[in-house]
Amino acid sequence: MSIAVYPGSFDPVTNGHVNLIRRAVEIFDGLIVAVAYNMRKQGLFSVEERVAMLREATAQIPRVEVDSFDGLLVDYMRRRSVRVVIRGLRATADFEYEFQMAHVNHKLYPDIETMFLVAGADEFFISSQVVKEVAMLGGSVACLVPPHVRDALEKKLADLSISR
Amino acid sequence: MSIAVYPGSFDPVTNGHVNLIRRAVEIFDGLIVAVAYNMRKQGLFSVEERVAMLREATAQIPRVEVDSFDGLLVDYMRRRSVRVVIRGLRATADFEYEFQMAHVNHKLYPDIETMFLVAGADEFFISSQVVKEVAMLGGSVACLVPPHVRDALEKKLADLSISR
Amino acid sequence: MSIAVYPGSFDPVTNGHVNLIRRAVEIFDGLIVAVAYNMRKQGLFSVEERVAMLREATAQIPRVEVDSFDGLLVDYMRRRSVRVVIRGLRATADFEYEFQMAHVNHKLYPDIETMFLVAGADEFFISSQVVKEVAMLGGSVACLVPPHVRDALEKKLADLSISR
Amino acid sequence: MSIAVYPGSFDPVTNGHVNLIRRAVEIFDGLIVAVAYNMRKQGLFSVEERVAMLREATAQIPRVEVDSFDGLLVDYMRRRSVRVVIRGLRATADFEYEFQMAHVNHKLYPDIETMFLVAGADEFFISSQVVKEVAMLGGSVACLVPPHVRDALEKKLADLSISR
Amino acid sequence: MSIAVYPGSFDPVTNGHVNLIRRAVEIFDGLIVAVAYNMRKQGLFSVEERVAMLREATAQIPRVEVDSFDGLLVDYMRRRSVRVVIRGLRATADFEYEFQMAHVNHKLYPDIETMFLVAGADEFFISSQVVKEVAMLGGSVACLVPPHVRDALEKKLADLSISR
Amino acid sequence: MSIAVYPGSFDPVTNGHVNLIRRAVEIFDGLIVAVAYNMRKQGLFSVEERVAMLREATAQIPRVEVDSFDGLLVDYMRRRSVRVVIRGLRATADFEYEFQMAHVNHKLYPDIETMFLVAGADEFFISSQVVKEVAMLGGSVACLVPPHVRDALEKKLADLSISR
Repeated sequence: MSIAVYPGSFDPVTNGHVNLIRRAVEIFDGLIVAVAYNMRKQGLFSVEERVAMLREATAQIPRVEVDSFDGLLVDYMRRRSVRVVIRGLRATADFEYEFQMAHVNHKLYPDIETMFLVAGADEFFISSQVVKEVAMLGGSVACLVPPHVRDALEKKLADLSISR
Repeated sequence: MSIAVYPGSFDPVTNGHVNLIRRAVEIFDGLIVAVAYNMRKQGLFSVEERVAMLREATAQIPRVEVDSFDGLLVDYMRRRSVRVVIRGLRATADFEYEFQMAHVNHKLYPDIETMFLVAGADEFFISSQVVKEVAMLGGSVACLVPPHVRDALEKKLADLSISR
Repeated sequence: MSIAVYPGSFDPVTNGHVNLIRRAVEIFDGLIVAVAYNMRKQGLFSVEERVAMLREATAQIPRVEVDSFDGLLVDYMRRRSVRVVIRGLRATADFEYEFQMAHVNHKLYPDIETMFLVAGADEFFISSQVVKEVAMLGGSVACLVPPHVRDALEKKLADLSISR
Repeated sequence: MSIAVYPGSFDPVTNGHVNLIRRAVEIFDGLIVAVAYNMRKQGLFSVEERVAMLREATAQIPRVEVDSFDGLLVDYMRRRSVRVVIRGLRATADFEYEFQMAHVNHKLYPDIETMFLVAGADEFFISSQVVKEVAMLGGSVACLVPPHVRDALEKKLADLSISR
Repeated sequence: MSIAVYPGSFDPVTNGHVNLIRRAVEIFDGLIVAVAYNMRKQGLFSVEERVAMLREATAQIPRVEVDSFDGLLVDYMRRRSVRVVIRGLRATADFEYEFQMAHVNHKLYPDIETMFLVAGADEFFISSQVVKEVAMLGGSVACLVPPHVRDALEKKLADLSISR
Repeated sequence: MSIAVYPGSFDPVTNGHVNLIRRAVEIFDGLIVAVAYNMRKQGLFSVEERVAMLREATAQIPRVEVDSFDGLLVDYMRRRSVRVVIRGLRATADFEYEFQMAHVNHKLYPDIETMFLVAGADEFFISSQVVKEVAMLGGSVACLVPPHVRDALEKKLADLSISR
């Protein structure tokens, strides 16, 4: 059985991520969407929040498991016995970084294979970073993320400005 | 009447910005140079200082207005009833970021159009970031920024090192 | 009055070109779409055919003139007293070539200004070259070019295979 | 069952292609390596020679079929009922072209998915074009292609220079 | 006598740096490897530690001097009467940044010449940043840095987690 | 003694080439500018004409030898006992091609080292190809090539149009 892992920070999940998950799951027997967290780097959303948003965003897509991990991706893959990583490419800057990481991961764990999908024509300009910037500046992110993520983002930013 | 806005952080204005303003104003009936500030991101110069330096740098160029705004560029453009954004391109890394932002802004406000000018041969290697780094390391920025900006930069860095 | 020229080989015009013309004409008082031909380089369509297809494709867009020229773009612009060139950017490879040409043209005629628009999200992958390759291999180009161009392309390729 | 097609001109197959085939076959249940030929474009080797060299180069790799097709890739995939294309990426120039083609193919046949593998660290600088140039200039291609391809290349170039 | 300087932050030195030093020293009569430090930017290792690790890593390579400097590279080069800078290129993103810096340095000190070497096929994916990330996430960096650097990195990270 | 070779087709030599030769000769004890020709590829100028134009263009630059070679660069370098190649970089597209060629040449002859210089700010947009296109379209290349090359180009194009 052929299983792939799609790792990322998903802080938060965007329409671009959902499009990629939908397409990757058609190719593999199963897909693990794995929130990579790093205790030293604080995100806008907690790992639990990111996992919950991903679960809701992928509830209608079959054969998808949402998980999270700290530490190296290759160690997580060894533990889960998964050998294929899926990554999205939106631009040549992505490509260069991913090219480097694919070779580093291959050095660390030669059995690993990284496969790339290109972002869809309606999503290649969407990133979690852009979504957060637009929301923080008061813009609507309705066309960039699923509805429940838009709501969570608005609530999170309102909470942050109250707590200041 | 055809008016364009040239947004940026201009922290501080460089010879590259002035060259681009000079050229853009030849094409449009008027040009608004707009300092985009972000209350969460502290610059080296205050918004007021950046606006003042821009005003001095463009004093001899006709049909230029210097302004500033917080929040989303598209909201500012709606308020000002301006539909054309001007951006400079110095390198392919710029291009990829600008390509993404042009599409995001188009999603947020479909009436907006982003137009690009390439940096001049004498200025494509100048950025506000490089200017600040050179000045902080004790180098002369006389060939990178207008004279009054060089003076302001030297004064600002002297003030900062005193207050430490 | 602010007039721009949009030069290209348009062999043939694609949906990407039409989208760009539609957007550029909103910014300028008038737009000259100019088929650049080169007597040494044979295209698939003759200059007259390319001009005719462009005229039909832009018939509903106001303030557009379709023209053609041989020789240097800068000489054509001098003759027409136009100082702004419009070019589309689809990818970073485009950007590098256009960056070079903008500087060469500026050297040859310093009054010229080149402005860039990025291709739309639905058209950035369309080029005349790709359209011709798909058609030659028997594929449908209905979603890549206007209907009359698709018809002309099919007729042209049928004529070519008969005459062989 | 999950089958992918790896299309290319393979004129001739290189160590880079073999490395990619070896890795792709580990991910899918089967891999069709398909020589795309074009009756209008003459290669150095005939389609039959390219297929034969590929068969010998992949003889020890299980679950690989070597085939050839004329016309559009998407039409070939429809006929073979295969929905996944594999392509290798060696450099950002590759990436831009492949990004464009993935979107064109998706427009022509929305069920198709293109997946990318990055070239290995020992092969990213190898292309069929470079191999042919080195051989034509009298250099040894022993470290760039399998031994039987090197022999075929030497024989082909000797035949060509005799027939001149 | 022809001497070059190879500046960098070397925080810490990697196999990629050592490969480049080994190759550069074959071309010049002598090579100064210079740790550029910045009192405002804290590295993982102190300047003294970085210099010591570089000295050990290059102990077997003749004609190499390890040094350090604060401030502008061009001022350091003036003091040392060296006119050639060596920089490594791993990817096009490097290239754009280096292109910019080469022109800035040329503006600041026209006698300076920057020369580039491309990273080796076994090292182009290695950077100090990647090495630190892998080590911090618990991975082995044995194939990315010299043995004494791996030991220093493990000790440094253990010290940091104790002191927290 | 440290000698480098600067290979190219130089069809014809441009101001960009001359700028690079002038800078490279400051770094090495001697520089061989080598016209790489290929009996299968016809240039605009013959090898003898290119060599003669290069000799005139570099007559005032000390320690420069102009030569020509057919076949592989690495074989020429072995014959001349030169181990350093100099190449210019004008854009990221250059970089990718040169990156590939540096690795191929290293595979063919491991003792070879390729060093890169970036094009000057006044010349990065100049290539032999652009020079020929401008001249063929009737433009002045006075600011792109040395005066004697401009004359030779005008004469060559006049001869060609007579002989047609």
